[in-house]
Amino acid sequence: MIIIGEKLNSTLKAIRPAIESYDAEAVADLAKKQYEAGATFIDINAGVFVDDEPERLAWLAKTVQEAIDAPLAIDSPDANAIKKALEVNKNSKVMINSITDEPKRFNEIAPLVAEYKTSIIALCMDSTGMPETVKDRVSIAESLIEKLTKEGVSISDIYIDPLVRPISTGIHYGNVAIETIREVKTQFPDVHIACGLSNISFSLPARKLINQAFLVAAIGAGMDGAIIDPLDKKLMSMIYASEALFGKDDYCRTYLKKYRSGEIEA
Amino acid sequence: MIIIGEKLNSTLKAIRPAIESYDAEAVADLAKKQYEAGATFIDINAGVFVDDEPERLAWLAKTVQEAIDAPLAIDSPDANAIKKALEVNKNSKVMINSITDEPKRFNEIAPLVAEYKTSIIALCMDSTGMPETVKDRVSIAESLIEKLTKEGVSISDIYIDPLVRPISTGIHYGNVAIETIREVKTQFPDVHIACGLSNISFSLPARKLINQAFLVAAIGAGMDGAIIDPLDKKLMSMIYASEALFGKDDYCRTYLKKYRSGEIEA
Repeated sequence: MIIIGEKLNSTLKAIRPAIESYDAEAVADLAKKQYEAGATFIDINAGVFVDDEPERLAWLAKTVQEAIDAPLAIDSPDANAIKKALEVNKNSKVMINSITDEPKRFNEIAPLVAEYKTSIIALCMDSTGMPETVKDRVSIAESLIEKLTKEGVSISDIYIDPLVRPISTGIHYGNVAIETIREVKTQFPDVHIACGLSNISFSLPARKLINQAFLVAAIGAGMDGAIIDPLDKKLMSMIYASEALFGKDDYCRTYLKKYRSGEIEA
Repeated sequence: MIIIGEKLNSTLKAIRPAIESYDAEAVADLAKKQYEAGATFIDINAGVFVDDEPERLAWLAKTVQEAIDAPLAIDSPDANAIKKALEVNKNSKVMINSITDEPKRFNEIAPLVAEYKTSIIALCMDSTGMPETVKDRVSIAESLIEKLTKEGVSISDIYIDPLVRPISTGIHYGNVAIETIREVKTQFPDVHIACGLSNISFSLPARKLINQAFLVAAIGAGMDGAIIDPLDKKLMSMIYASEALFGKDDYCRTYLKKYRSGEIEA
């Protein structure tokens, strides 16, 4: 499972002040903690700082890289901000989070993906907005995969995000996300699937429970990447349990290893 | 979700002495607690008492019915023991747990299912043992459904149990159980699917985590019955969360109600 650690995000109240005040120590510390807890990529987002997002994003990239060796997931819809962070990136692996099938965003970001040979999170969304049905989402995924590979991007660098909407706003949204994952993974076995979990439980109580259930179902459907808080031990434990359950962990070796090192919380 | 409360089982060390000593109060108490926690059926099993299983099973049936109004799940492979318990049963709803496609067991138990108009748990197993593949399990389920309905049993009274084997003994057993559920439910939308959870995690540490993950995946594949401990609050919470996630809980009404009544543990 590819874990994209989501905590260095300016929209989160806990870390925003540190990004605002250029507190390198706090940022480095949170990057390090996520990496040690199992994050494959460290997401960085400076989106709330509308006036100087590019500079702050580049500062985040630099600060994280000075602290640890983990690859970055550069989180912005803005090509200029992404480029600034890419320019200071020193790691051979890097991810851009994210592209959509909206023409302007696609045309600005796709060349960066190709030029810097990054991985890319591709959201099932186009200029008409977020599609309602599985069929429409899959069709946007197909379009994104076709266009990105035509730009020279390797299919194994593409992470399709089915886009998760809250079940509190529509009883079908859980199944829509899960069936989109299953369908895309069946059609394109070499593509990755990654998504955030927390939208699914928006406005409901005991959200962690719903997020855990969604995580299991999404892994079962073929999701192999998750944008999550790797410091959430219970959620990480559920990932290891799910991988064992769905036959992705030979002899339950990883599960047993994580249990022995105290990383499993039942 | 149909919950079959599994705790009144003579193979469980905690309750065995109470069944052995005919402790009606302890048995009644455990029946009542399970019913209040949401059990639809109360399973009764006296299988370890090889010399007088029929008498003890009938005593369990009588004792539970004196305490509460809940329907019984009469748990035995022995037609004679089942018959004794059926004779003292007063509830219009009753379940037999279980039948298989082994000729002797089928021919002895199927007439009881038809005569007493009971529900029946049908295990995907025949005289060759427990099949390895999804295909072989589905084919036994087909055979059981065909034969039982031919005996006059309504399809909505049949609960197919895919049989769960431990993932510690075979990396594929999680997927085999889940895909059997999906396939049987797709072919026979009116049949119920019920299974026990705990086998899946046999010999692994932090078993509850694996059981929870399996529960979510099984509900997603179409399982609508579970043989579980209804006093396990976390597991019951995961059922409510899963039903909301998979679009089986309009406006998340049950989930929210359970949360308000303090029955949700995140």
